[in-house]
Amino acid sequence: MEASARARRVSERIDTLAAISEEPDRLTRRFATPALREAAEAVAGWMEAAGMAARLDAIGNVVGRYEGSAPGAAALLIGSHLDTVRDAGRFDGMLGVVLGVAAVERLAARGERLPFAIEVAGFADEEGVRYGTAYLGSKALAGSFDPAYLGLLDEDGISMADAIRAAGGDPDGIAGCARAAGSLLGYCEVHMEQGPVLEAEGLPVGVVTAIAGQTRARVTLDGEAGHAGTVPMGLRHDALAGAAALVLEVERVGRETGGLVATVGELAVLPGAGNVVPGRALLSLDVRHASDEARVAAVASIRASAAGIAAARGLELGWDVLQETGAVPTSQPLTTLLETAIESGGLPVRRLVSGAGHDAAVMAAVTPACMLFVRCAGGVSHSPAEEVTEADVAVAIEVLDRFLHRVAARPG
Amino acid sequence: MEASARARRVSERIDTLAAISEEPDRLTRRFATPALREAAEAVAGWMEAAGMAARLDAIGNVVGRYEGSAPGAAALLIGSHLDTVRDAGRFDGMLGVVLGVAAVERLAARGERLPFAIEVAGFADEEGVRYGTAYLGSKALAGSFDPAYLGLLDEDGISMADAIRAAGGDPDGIAGCARAAGSLLGYCEVHMEQGPVLEAEGLPVGVVTAIAGQTRARVTLDGEAGHAGTVPMGLRHDALAGAAALVLEVERVGRETGGLVATVGELAVLPGAGNVVPGRALLSLDVRHASDEARVAAVASIRASAAGIAAARGLELGWDVLQETGAVPTSQPLTTLLETAIESGGLPVRRLVSGAGHDAAVMAAVTPACMLFVRCAGGVSHSPAEEVTEADVAVAIEVLDRFLHRVAARPG
Repeated sequence: MEASARARRVSERIDTLAAISEEPDRLTRRFATPALREAAEAVAGWMEAAGMAARLDAIGNVVGRYEGSAPGAAALLIGSHLDTVRDAGRFDGMLGVVLGVAAVERLAARGERLPFAIEVAGFADEEGVRYGTAYLGSKALAGSFDPAYLGLLDEDGISMADAIRAAGGDPDGIAGCARAAGSLLGYCEVHMEQGPVLEAEGLPVGVVTAIAGQTRARVTLDGEAGHAGTVPMGLRHDALAGAAALVLEVERVGRETGGLVATVGELAVLPGAGNVVPGRALLSLDVRHASDEARVAAVASIRASAAGIAAARGLELGWDVLQETGAVPTSQPLTTLLETAIESGGLPVRRLVSGAGHDAAVMAAVTPACMLFVRCAGGVSHSPAEEVTEADVAVAIEVLDRFLHRVAARPG
Repeated sequence: MEASARARRVSERIDTLAAISEEPDRLTRRFATPALREAAEAVAGWMEAAGMAARLDAIGNVVGRYEGSAPGAAALLIGSHLDTVRDAGRFDGMLGVVLGVAAVERLAARGERLPFAIEVAGFADEEGVRYGTAYLGSKALAGSFDPAYLGLLDEDGISMADAIRAAGGDPDGIAGCARAAGSLLGYCEVHMEQGPVLEAEGLPVGVVTAIAGQTRARVTLDGEAGHAGTVPMGLRHDALAGAAALVLEVERVGRETGGLVATVGELAVLPGAGNVVPGRALLSLDVRHASDEARVAAVASIRASAAGIAAARGLELGWDVLQETGAVPTSQPLTTLLETAIESGGLPVRRLVSGAGHDAAVMAAVTPACMLFVRCAGGVSHSPAEEVTEADVAVAIEVLDRFLHRVAARPG
């Protein structure tokens, strides 16, 4: 089958999955819901049709295996996730799972076996919408699933253990999902970029060199509320004015540090009335970089500026670090093979840092991992407006085909 | 009675009024509620004890009259409001009403009649909490009450007409509340400052030269939402960063224009998640000045800056003017008499612009109006923490006494 016809089939399957939702009019498919199980079973059906042995594991991941030339060989795992955010798009996660199946279909159609097995995984949770804990699916495979998660409650008071059971899984079996050392030779994830860089540069695909480390903090500035008509400018301690200075400082540090992204995405003002000078402002801070050193230095610089702004304005600064995650570099050998697969298709290689987290970051702890990004429209993600063209899907299919053969061909 | 004893009595009455509330544990007394009627009746009782003829009018104002030396003479009206915001302090409004009664009490105790009558009004609505329409009480007296207000509904769906009836008033009689031309010779309002200026300067009282004009606007900045991890700084159109630049510009214009106050009291960010670059920001703008020309110029300058910020950042600017109120100067002759009354007590005269609106602004349309501000703690208002010392109340009582005699002594 031509790449374009295979891309067509991928699109159709993505449409099929997009119709499997918890909600009637939009795509929402959280962990351990009937909708997620239905999607996993659909994928299992495609896997079996492609000659794979497919099963749902204890946490609800769907995993299919296509044996290599020697049965029981270590596997290259191709994966991504099947869960979605609320009111999601069709490509985030699903694209990588369906492309993995498409890669195996081609081998099966040609009766081809590689020197290693290929497994394809559709993870049951990456977004963490239901329990606030991302990567549950890949953590189960990586052996980093914390059993304490099982006691967490969702917004309806349902524990994770009960939810897993209700969805046909087995909370007591999750420890058994962990892959034995040596059973995997690597992990490859194809994912939509979720950013605008490939589109801006006119490129269908790119490789990921690292998944950025991230600092998340909650910043508060306390000043003095007052009547907007009666407190003269010179006597004010306006928390919002201080917050505004900080927002611009975050932007400045982001712009001046190569590769850094720094964002204030939330800002709340108290008491928050048009005729009241703000007494309190709460801001979120999100800073990411491929280098932990660069990120930590940027956060320190922003924090020092915040302290200076607060002191100059007579405000009190609060600073709570909520999350601090180190960067995860991808495997250089596997990424080089991905690059070769891109170049041999006549395309330039664009290396990107992933600012978003991915299952690849979890899998990288146990096996060499690589990622291929596919161009998306306008950088839009987590929205029904998510779009990846079928032409780019075709490019990604062919890169993945060539990558598998490059892996097969490497000296052993 | 000594001024200190009179101040004590004023304090006790203020405490009595503060206990009359719609809510058990805090002071909330909205227009046309049983609590407001009870407060008005308590004031009416004090008025009658002071030798005044007191009545509740069609809209629920309590008005007492102390005849002058010639019965039926034009009246000097001393007034303020008896309604409150939710979770209010004890002084905003009430102070001026109770002080008016105290001034009459002294005359009555001395058997003294002035060449004019004194009326004291406790207005039924200044805050506008229940119907979103401020100054209903003084508008009835000034003849500027719009009958269309009667159809407005409160949050429980009760029309203003029905509420007035339920509180013992008469919506059809409101037009009859309007004072005939010539029946008033002036209006004097004593009010807590609601700002920090007198306290900062160590002064118990000040005179108001004007009630500031006000522009209120709603400003929107539309950019492009995006993933905080994947959209590089250089490709962002961050609505919050633009809003932050505008907040600082509003502050700069406020600081650089003498007498201007300019405030962003509300700022909302959409979608408002820590990991999403803001796509939309909504800001409130509140600009006030005693000179309409200065205010209009400041707003124009802020708007031009907003347009420049939006253009430089690739944002779309929306600008809706919600309110535009001209400044109301107080009566120069009456204010001069207030100043003389302050000076003859050995105090320096501090002239202030009122950034907050007051019933005096409504009354100024029909009769010469003046205002005396009394120092408050920390500029705090619209809060249970509102505080005016009894010593300052005593100063205000004596200024008001002297003012009445100055008005009586003026030629003509």
